[in-house]
Amino acid sequence: MHSLLPKTQTAVPPRTFIAELAPLMGQRVKIKGWVHRLREHAKTTFVVVKDLSGTLQCVVATRENRENFRLRLEDCVEVIGNLNPDARVANGMELFVESIRILARAKEALPFTSGSSIEKVTQEVLIENRPLVLRHAEKGEIFRTQARIVELFREYLTKNRFTEIFTSKIVASGTEGGTNLFKLRYFEKTAYLAQSPQFYKEQCVGGLERVFETGHVYRAEPHATSRHLTEYYSLDVELGFIEGPEEIMELERELLNYMFEVLNREKAEVLQRFGVGPLPSMEKAPIWEFGECLERLKLAYGSEAIEGLSEDLNGEAEKRLCELAMREFACPAVYVVGFPLHARPFYTAARGTAGAAQSFDLLFRGLEITTGGQRLHERAQLEKALRGRGLEPSAFESHLKMFELGMPPHGGFAIGAERLTAQILGLANIREATLYPRDRNRLTP
Amino acid sequence: MHSLLPKTQTAVPPRTFIAELAPLMGQRVKIKGWVHRLREHAKTTFVVVKDLSGTLQCVVATRENRENFRLRLEDCVEVIGNLNPDARVANGMELFVESIRILARAKEALPFTSGSSIEKVTQEVLIENRPLVLRHAEKGEIFRTQARIVELFREYLTKNRFTEIFTSKIVASGTEGGTNLFKLRYFEKTAYLAQSPQFYKEQCVGGLERVFETGHVYRAEPHATSRHLTEYYSLDVELGFIEGPEEIMELERELLNYMFEVLNREKAEVLQRFGVGPLPSMEKAPIWEFGECLERLKLAYGSEAIEGLSEDLNGEAEKRLCELAMREFACPAVYVVGFPLHARPFYTAARGTAGAAQSFDLLFRGLEITTGGQRLHERAQLEKALRGRGLEPSAFESHLKMFELGMPPHGGFAIGAERLTAQILGLANIREATLYPRDRNRLTP
Repeated sequence: MHSLLPKTQTAVPPRTFIAELAPLMGQRVKIKGWVHRLREHAKTTFVVVKDLSGTLQCVVATRENRENFRLRLEDCVEVIGNLNPDARVANGMELFVESIRILARAKEALPFTSGSSIEKVTQEVLIENRPLVLRHAEKGEIFRTQARIVELFREYLTKNRFTEIFTSKIVASGTEGGTNLFKLRYFEKTAYLAQSPQFYKEQCVGGLERVFETGHVYRAEPHATSRHLTEYYSLDVELGFIEGPEEIMELERELLNYMFEVLNREKAEVLQRFGVGPLPSMEKAPIWEFGECLERLKLAYGSEAIEGLSEDLNGEAEKRLCELAMREFACPAVYVVGFPLHARPFYTAARGTAGAAQSFDLLFRGLEITTGGQRLHERAQLEKALRGRGLEPSAFESHLKMFELGMPPHGGFAIGAERLTAQILGLANIREATLYPRDRNRLTP
Repeated sequence: MHSLLPKTQTAVPPRTFIAELAPLMGQRVKIKGWVHRLREHAKTTFVVVKDLSGTLQCVVATRENRENFRLRLEDCVEVIGNLNPDARVANGMELFVESIRILARAKEALPFTSGSSIEKVTQEVLIENRPLVLRHAEKGEIFRTQARIVELFREYLTKNRFTEIFTSKIVASGTEGGTNLFKLRYFEKTAYLAQSPQFYKEQCVGGLERVFETGHVYRAEPHATSRHLTEYYSLDVELGFIEGPEEIMELERELLNYMFEVLNREKAEVLQRFGVGPLPSMEKAPIWEFGECLERLKLAYGSEAIEGLSEDLNGEAEKRLCELAMREFACPAVYVVGFPLHARPFYTAARGTAGAAQSFDLLFRGLEITTGGQRLHERAQLEKALRGRGLEPSAFESHLKMFELGMPPHGGFAIGAERLTAQILGLANIREATLYPRDRNRLTP
């Protein structure tokens, strides 16, 4: 440890977070953090230190730094000094350095730093340097915002009598009949990674009535597009004793409104920095039947716009439907309900008798962020639906028998946390909102 | 729908949760739930309906029930009727049934019901009937309490500037060198299920300084004991800029105190019903060095008590150390610190120069619920430690290079959520606190 001042004060103050320094003005304080910026003048060097709570300008003699510390950007340091008011810097204070302890060195040739512009840094480099991304003034906000999004999701549901559940991700069979599953050697057996907590959340509704789960799910997606990952964080909700899917959509509307209102309040600056502005009220998002969507698309964009859309929407249609909703209701979101039943999973309830499903998607700012719906809740219906899809009910026995224990009418939905974060912040690629993305080509870091 | 009363009131009231009925006394209300108890008298049948919020006694004419409803325990019903005060029942009200709609039937021969005693029901039957367990008056509390435990964990950390992270569970190599890993076919590559978010939480400390994660982790445990699962829910914490492991233990102490105080307040009745009483303050839990633990065990239980404990404690020793702490400090918990370094993972920091590790376990009510410690934070140290264990640093390159980006001294810990729940409620088998347990022999439900 090197000292600039005579060591008259020997008691070492405890470490204080930068955001909590203000009441200690004029006192001797200790901070810890990373060297965020360095500005060397002839006599004086300004060292901006960053910790999880903020930044502080520290002042050290240039000769002292050159001889003793040789600070580099992103070094980890502990700084002791006197805290003084300074109206010229953003938070109105600076630290006259008494001593600096180097806790860890950063290498000299960093691909980018926590204070540098990273517009030209490739996605690849960002993924390979997550600590720097998280430390970065702007990019780090993506993951702080994501944490808040997930927290608000849980908070709203808990307030509304939902119980959080934790269910297994290692399963004996897929929920949707066996495509895109990751296969696992499970001792003497074969197992799969869960594509969703679908079966489990339904079963738990049979006991707790309202449940949610937040956790990873897995799809062996053969494509690596800007919207697909093989592992994503699913925000799952399921509730019992419902009358129909409208009740589920209403719940999601209120949930998102709750989340968006808090984010608009707390993250106004972040939303502005990411160029997206305040989040909309979901009150005005229309509910359109699948058939109606096709008609609207055809009317607005011509009949080529609905080619190949007999079973599901595609990315282009999702974008356009949000545009249409924006035009008509000033809300960039649409609930699409009544998808063709045969294209939905076997457990989906029928909407009327014309082959439509009680299932819906929520499109938000041009992207599907939710799939949900009402499920079948009687064993006989489920068996019939399985057979209708050429699946053998006996393979689902461990799930089917739960439907003999008194299973209320129920339904739910799931939101992809990465997609939601990306749409909230206007990110072009879902990987920007995924700490350690997994796709066909990526298994590290 | 069958009606007992003339249909003079046609507007159907909205469904009300039973716990929210009190202000509607004297009014016509609608409830939904399960048939929890049935008591048939000559003229009148009492039907206790249970929803997620409570139970309500409903009164229906026995003839009416026999002719129209034929209610069975655990049927899902919607009941409309008049809410009347009745001082004889627990919540002071009962419902005079106007109509009952059967929403779903339960089968006749249930293994147990939500109101029955299940002391003699085997663990196997409980696991095979999770909806009934969750609906059960007593057993359901295990999972409600678990949800609250995890919520409080997140709440405390968020209040203390920790950021939640979501990291991949599909990894290219194990964190501890390759034992007990589940192997996965990942397209053209081989991957593994993560044993812990260890590497990722360390990397994220390099950006966010304080992080936590709650999520499943995987161990291909060859045994299926009462304390081991192949998949468990890990409550992970990691923080940077620490001075030593004492800081980490102190954080955990405060975290647990926060959680325990709330649980003592909110779940007093549940704790009493499970026969465990209030949770202790962790303030008094002693910190004992590993060597000191062996001496204490020897002194109290004789030298056989420490046979085979040269590298780690065993279940018996964990129990006894908690007994000793209870005797001396009136607290059934001990922090054991300074385990032999060579028996701990390669990333563990050394405690002094005599071969001890800066790592600790927390034993609580006779069981290890936490492992934690300070980690190495310099690339060169990590490489040396890997080589010392016969591991090739290049296999860990994707992790090691993060240590060149400015990695502060750091450490953390992990708590198994199922173990913590079991110890809080005094459950003998971890499976009682696991919704869908996975072990060598169990892959369903």
